[in-house]
Amino acid sequence: MSTYLRETLFRSDRLEVLCCSWSMGSVSKPHDHGLSTCAVVVQEGLFENTLLGATPETTLFEAGSVIVTPARIAHSLQCVSEKGKTIHFYSPPLRAEPEQGVRNFRPLPIAEIRDASVRIQQSGMDFSELEDAFRVIESRSVTTASPYFMNQLFSGYHPEAVLAEQFLSTHKTTLATYEASPALTAIEQEVTSQLGTLVGWKRSEGISVPGGSSANFMALHLARHFRNASTKDDGNGAGEYAIFVSDQAHYSLKKAAVVLGFGVKSIVPVQTDAAGRMITSDLEKQFAAAKERGAKPLAVCATSGTTVLGAFDPIAEIAKVCAENKAWLHVDAAWGGPILFSPAHRNLMAGIELADSFTFDGHKFFGASLTSSFLVNRHSGLLRAANDVSGTEYLFHDDDGIDLGRMSWQCGKKSDALSFWAIWKRRGTDGLRQLVETHYRTRDEVLEYVRTQPRLRLAHQPEFLNLCVYVDPPPGAAPDPQYSRKIREALIRDNIAMVNYSVDREGGSFLRLIFAHPDLQSKHCIGILEAALSTTFS
Amino acid sequence: MSTYLRETLFRSDRLEVLCCSWSMGSVSKPHDHGLSTCAVVVQEGLFENTLLGATPETTLFEAGSVIVTPARIAHSLQCVSEKGKTIHFYSPPLRAEPEQGVRNFRPLPIAEIRDASVRIQQSGMDFSELEDAFRVIESRSVTTASPYFMNQLFSGYHPEAVLAEQFLSTHKTTLATYEASPALTAIEQEVTSQLGTLVGWKRSEGISVPGGSSANFMALHLARHFRNASTKDDGNGAGEYAIFVSDQAHYSLKKAAVVLGFGVKSIVPVQTDAAGRMITSDLEKQFAAAKERGAKPLAVCATSGTTVLGAFDPIAEIAKVCAENKAWLHVDAAWGGPILFSPAHRNLMAGIELADSFTFDGHKFFGASLTSSFLVNRHSGLLRAANDVSGTEYLFHDDDGIDLGRMSWQCGKKSDALSFWAIWKRRGTDGLRQLVETHYRTRDEVLEYVRTQPRLRLAHQPEFLNLCVYVDPPPGAAPDPQYSRKIREALIRDNIAMVNYSVDREGGSFLRLIFAHPDLQSKHCIGILEAALSTTFS
Repeated sequence: MSTYLRETLFRSDRLEVLCCSWSMGSVSKPHDHGLSTCAVVVQEGLFENTLLGATPETTLFEAGSVIVTPARIAHSLQCVSEKGKTIHFYSPPLRAEPEQGVRNFRPLPIAEIRDASVRIQQSGMDFSELEDAFRVIESRSVTTASPYFMNQLFSGYHPEAVLAEQFLSTHKTTLATYEASPALTAIEQEVTSQLGTLVGWKRSEGISVPGGSSANFMALHLARHFRNASTKDDGNGAGEYAIFVSDQAHYSLKKAAVVLGFGVKSIVPVQTDAAGRMITSDLEKQFAAAKERGAKPLAVCATSGTTVLGAFDPIAEIAKVCAENKAWLHVDAAWGGPILFSPAHRNLMAGIELADSFTFDGHKFFGASLTSSFLVNRHSGLLRAANDVSGTEYLFHDDDGIDLGRMSWQCGKKSDALSFWAIWKRRGTDGLRQLVETHYRTRDEVLEYVRTQPRLRLAHQPEFLNLCVYVDPPPGAAPDPQYSRKIREALIRDNIAMVNYSVDREGGSFLRLIFAHPDLQSKHCIGILEAALSTTFS
Repeated sequence: MSTYLRETLFRSDRLEVLCCSWSMGSVSKPHDHGLSTCAVVVQEGLFENTLLGATPETTLFEAGSVIVTPARIAHSLQCVSEKGKTIHFYSPPLRAEPEQGVRNFRPLPIAEIRDASVRIQQSGMDFSELEDAFRVIESRSVTTASPYFMNQLFSGYHPEAVLAEQFLSTHKTTLATYEASPALTAIEQEVTSQLGTLVGWKRSEGISVPGGSSANFMALHLARHFRNASTKDDGNGAGEYAIFVSDQAHYSLKKAAVVLGFGVKSIVPVQTDAAGRMITSDLEKQFAAAKERGAKPLAVCATSGTTVLGAFDPIAEIAKVCAENKAWLHVDAAWGGPILFSPAHRNLMAGIELADSFTFDGHKFFGASLTSSFLVNRHSGLLRAANDVSGTEYLFHDDDGIDLGRMSWQCGKKSDALSFWAIWKRRGTDGLRQLVETHYRTRDEVLEYVRTQPRLRLAHQPEFLNLCVYVDPPPGAAPDPQYSRKIREALIRDNIAMVNYSVDREGGSFLRLIFAHPDLQSKHCIGILEAALSTTFS
């Protein structure tokens, strides 16, 4: 197969132009352009373009023709004249395939970053100079688009989310009122109502909030209003509140207690078992103790998918304790919520329909833009009752209940729902199920590899898409409880991967692999672990 | 001058392809492509391309050449052969010039919008079908990019912000930790530290928050911690708090009081004068009354640029009252803050350096993306002291003070600073001053027009970029205090403009023109007012 020559004529963040020279029979391998739209102008010669798919289709193009191939559509181009010349336009520019891509995980010290590319000056610059500054920013940013980025509970992004953000950047509007955002209000309602349906509620309501932490804040705020609506006018009043969370729950619940004026002391930690799940008998004990000391039990926050171990608290059992104690049950499913899409795994959240509210993040496993978080609750009207105040007549002119701002803490409010909606709309509910199940399969492949490696020890039997693994020092070396953390630092230093670590109850560290990147394959994870095992410290 | 023929070959949200046929001497008018990058392939003939600027430059291009013109660069193309053919690529597609653009201000009922284009189904779709759905969403969205959109305290957008959002959509990372966002952390610090310098503080700290409302929430939370740090552990405790705000202040302060557990009653309204400014003598009275009834005076929130009238509370006078009463002084400058850039107008905020904190929105007047809000305060270390909790070791590994998440209520946190930074970086501090002063001049031109029209009455003598105007019914018609509101509805119904209204103390309505769109000219505003005057109701 003869080849063809490629030359880059122009490249910016928005457009890439290539020129290709061909000879008879030279052909491009079947390929798609990721999220780029590709347009080819035939300058010279005759070409056959084959669109791949269920029924491949070949069309002949002569000089002067323009061939447009939309994003994510695979094709192959062949020169069928003696020679040929084509000009290729990609918008946005082609991104490198993940495994070939740049990996930059080693941050420079901030003093080195705060240079002229960051500093704002008295006088301005050309747009192209700003684009140059963005290229510097890019070179100093962590490659979060790479499957080797596993530091957070998200990795990579979906092209649907990119489309959504492009839309919002030129269709800037606030979700506060229906009149300024009719279509986007309908989209937010669609997402929150589908999420309510997903957990089995016939009636529910929800709102997008700026992150999973904010969703947890809102849940406790709703619980307060539900218990005693007079707090809205009068404040918390005297006395101690009690909010029960597992000792593995997310720190945002403590922050919520501070912000809402309950204080950190109102957070009552409940013991967990070795797998990181709340122990219901200890929850009952804590309720009794709280009542004995005269505290006001407000809510239990169960976690579906804890941050470190990916553990699922037993919701159905906890719901029983809540019902007996008339406490609000909130489920923080920011990370674990995606299993609701999988009939094979959703039993981990059995009893979710008995909860009062839950947190769901579209930007974690499902790859929506930061942030795409939702608080959904089953008491219709409560969001507005707890949050609406007077003095908003300048903004909310009608009383028809569609203005999302009245249910929110925000006034100017971006459409956080749009990127998750775009992913869900494009893939369908079936597609989201597949995404969950594919990642479970990848996890199992990696688990199998781990079991073959004597120097890798599981920190837990994973229930979800966290895989926590101790890396032990090589045979003969002294035991070192911090060895895994040192491995993590070496992986970052060598730009191999950015994997987070955590510590066990004895303070020993382990690596936490997260299965979230849309294109993640077991080879990426095994590659990281192989690099970990071959690391040497001099 | 002979003309040329244009034919659209392809158009998507990301790429537009045109084909142009030329004859000898035909020439394109000098034009730029807004925020599009333009690439032209010469297919046939000979062309002269002139790049306009301080020293225009002309270059000859023959068949096979590619001419790339970056965003916002003006040029002119002329055919110098008998005939010619060019293919033009625009990425993103050309947007219509504001005055020629679509104006869609009339929302459909939500029941009509919730159709197949919005509904999420079990099965997925092609990417191109999703793009089709986005086109439907676009057709049902309000044209906020038009200068005839004046409904909110923002309008339109800057291309720099579009660039920033494109960057973030493919470089998705969280601002919580430095290790995951080194460059973006430096950028956030640059913006908040420049804002601190702008008000005259030698030392300060700041954080991006999801909207101006959230900035006000954070300010009151800091005030609580500053007054009594034990509230962090113990909660608000018994007793009534008092927070003093003018009767024209933003409703978010009430919401903040609810959320923070103080209750709406803690918000003490202070009287304003006819121009909407807080009356300091009444503030003193309210302080005395609060103390008398045993309340705990916590803070005063002054407003720089009220929502309806654009009034500026007298900060220096208020600061004196705060100092005497040891109360925190917060300034909500979400809308009015831009005058800090203008030596000619910043006296309206005289005394700002005496405040403890202020709110600044980059997404309002300055056209950054929604949301780009900041809370800046002059007590370095307070944000972290008030917000950091334990149990975050899994995320924050170092104690070097750069992890913005420890100063925040958010965990996963988008770079809200980037779009405002891009605008400020590109235009420089001088450019932002010019933007403020240009809009003041536009306002004055419109003011002059209003004074010539007997049926237009000023609701106030404007201090800032709000212009509140009563439209009176035609001569001979019955007086109607709601006439302006009806005019507003007619302007929306006829897709002429979306201008908000508000009401005076007697309940009479007036239109509120907002000078914020980057390309706003007096002709747009006068056009709206002319349409208002020529409206008839049958």
